[in-house]
Amino acid sequence: MEPKHGPLIYEGKAKRIFATDHGDKVLIEFKDDATAFNALKRSILKGKGFLNCQISAYIFDFLKSNGIQTHFLDLEGENWMKAQNIKIIPIEVVIRNVATGSLCKQTPIKEGRKLSPPLLDLYYKDDSLGDPLLTNERLKLLDLINDAQLEELGRLARRVNEILQVFFKNLDLLLVDFKLEIGFNNAGEMLVADEISPDTCRFWDERSSDPTERILDKDRFRKDLGGVVEAYGEILKRIQGGMKSD
Amino acid sequence: MEPKHGPLIYEGKAKRIFATDHGDKVLIEFKDDATAFNALKRSILKGKGFLNCQISAYIFDFLKSNGIQTHFLDLEGENWMKAQNIKIIPIEVVIRNVATGSLCKQTPIKEGRKLSPPLLDLYYKDDSLGDPLLTNERLKLLDLINDAQLEELGRLARRVNEILQVFFKNLDLLLVDFKLEIGFNNAGEMLVADEISPDTCRFWDERSSDPTERILDKDRFRKDLGGVVEAYGEILKRIQGGMKSD
Repeated sequence: MEPKHGPLIYEGKAKRIFATDHGDKVLIEFKDDATAFNALKRSILKGKGFLNCQISAYIFDFLKSNGIQTHFLDLEGENWMKAQNIKIIPIEVVIRNVATGSLCKQTPIKEGRKLSPPLLDLYYKDDSLGDPLLTNERLKLLDLINDAQLEELGRLARRVNEILQVFFKNLDLLLVDFKLEIGFNNAGEMLVADEISPDTCRFWDERSSDPTERILDKDRFRKDLGGVVEAYGEILKRIQGGMKSD
Repeated sequence: MEPKHGPLIYEGKAKRIFATDHGDKVLIEFKDDATAFNALKRSILKGKGFLNCQISAYIFDFLKSNGIQTHFLDLEGENWMKAQNIKIIPIEVVIRNVATGSLCKQTPIKEGRKLSPPLLDLYYKDDSLGDPLLTNERLKLLDLINDAQLEELGRLARRVNEILQVFFKNLDLLLVDFKLEIGFNNAGEMLVADEISPDTCRFWDERSSDPTERILDKDRFRKDLGGVVEAYGEILKRIQGGMKSD
């Protein structure tokens, strides 16, 4: 059921953002569209929008209770949330606790290596350039944020990782890596935005030792493993179960 | 004419390295082979080995007179040099004074932008991985050099750039960017190795304003502009002329 909303502000690969009567609030619709490899691979996964919206809402609430500011305000239906209107910093912040994915394709670092301290990778958010990896020196040349903001962003991402690693560990889920999008609200505060879901995190099920079965995230879609929506559903089920038992 | 040498130690895309009777010295043969795009493009350019060997020898001598240690010892013929036997650090160090090439393909930084301070890019030297760009955090994970060595390497590369920028400026050549390979000799000293030539530097002729004509480096080969050996010859001619008038 669609909540009352204003005009479309932005449509991304997995979400639509709509204006509301309040300039500092937006409504976000989570779509069922799945894309990978810079949208070269596309599909519709019925139920994904609902699952990612609900999972993100839970996680944003949990982060809030741990002192992390996020854009999330309220759920507004199955796959809609109300959020603060923010200006996204065009940097994808990736935190890696275990080496996998592009890191292992681009370096001789072995798949499955535990990364301690966690690795922070920053990418320039630009589909036409393929979201290139940024060194600190290149980042400075792009003039996207100042040094103090860059430091705050790194601290924020590492703190989110510490909180979520423990949260998911308690649900028998290994948080392998995840992407954050970070922005500024109208008051100029830096906060976590976008979504935190199996589309943006890698989760390995610690109840399974099978290297394929244990994957409970978008890698099931990227690698054609099937059972994508079922895996996302398992994440929501564990979060809901864990929340109840708290 | 081939100098007396021992067995082949290593053959790269553009050079062969041979043992000598002294374990801490090697003989390096500069080949006429030209390669680009990770050796997807190949050709033989008659005379290139001679030119790059002579140009490198001049530049290494000039660096030495400015207090920079290099592996170069002596010329041993047209396309042969004697050098210290060193252990190369598997990091390609690129210093950019003007934005061009891969930097402009990977970021929104505009072609021709002056980079001040110069941009230092580090790449992991591995053809099979396509020499990937390294962030400082990824570099640390690879455990190739320690923090103090990394700092020394950056300082060395920036100092070489300062010296060579002025050197080439006096020859009406803009040193756009260049790659250094750096290693340790048997005494554990860090020094500049490999070659410094139009294969590893971009030179723009300040006597021309034509964006194609002014290119006097390997980009003539990469971009099929022709006149590759002639351009390299022009670099040697200016260096020899500049040296005489000093």
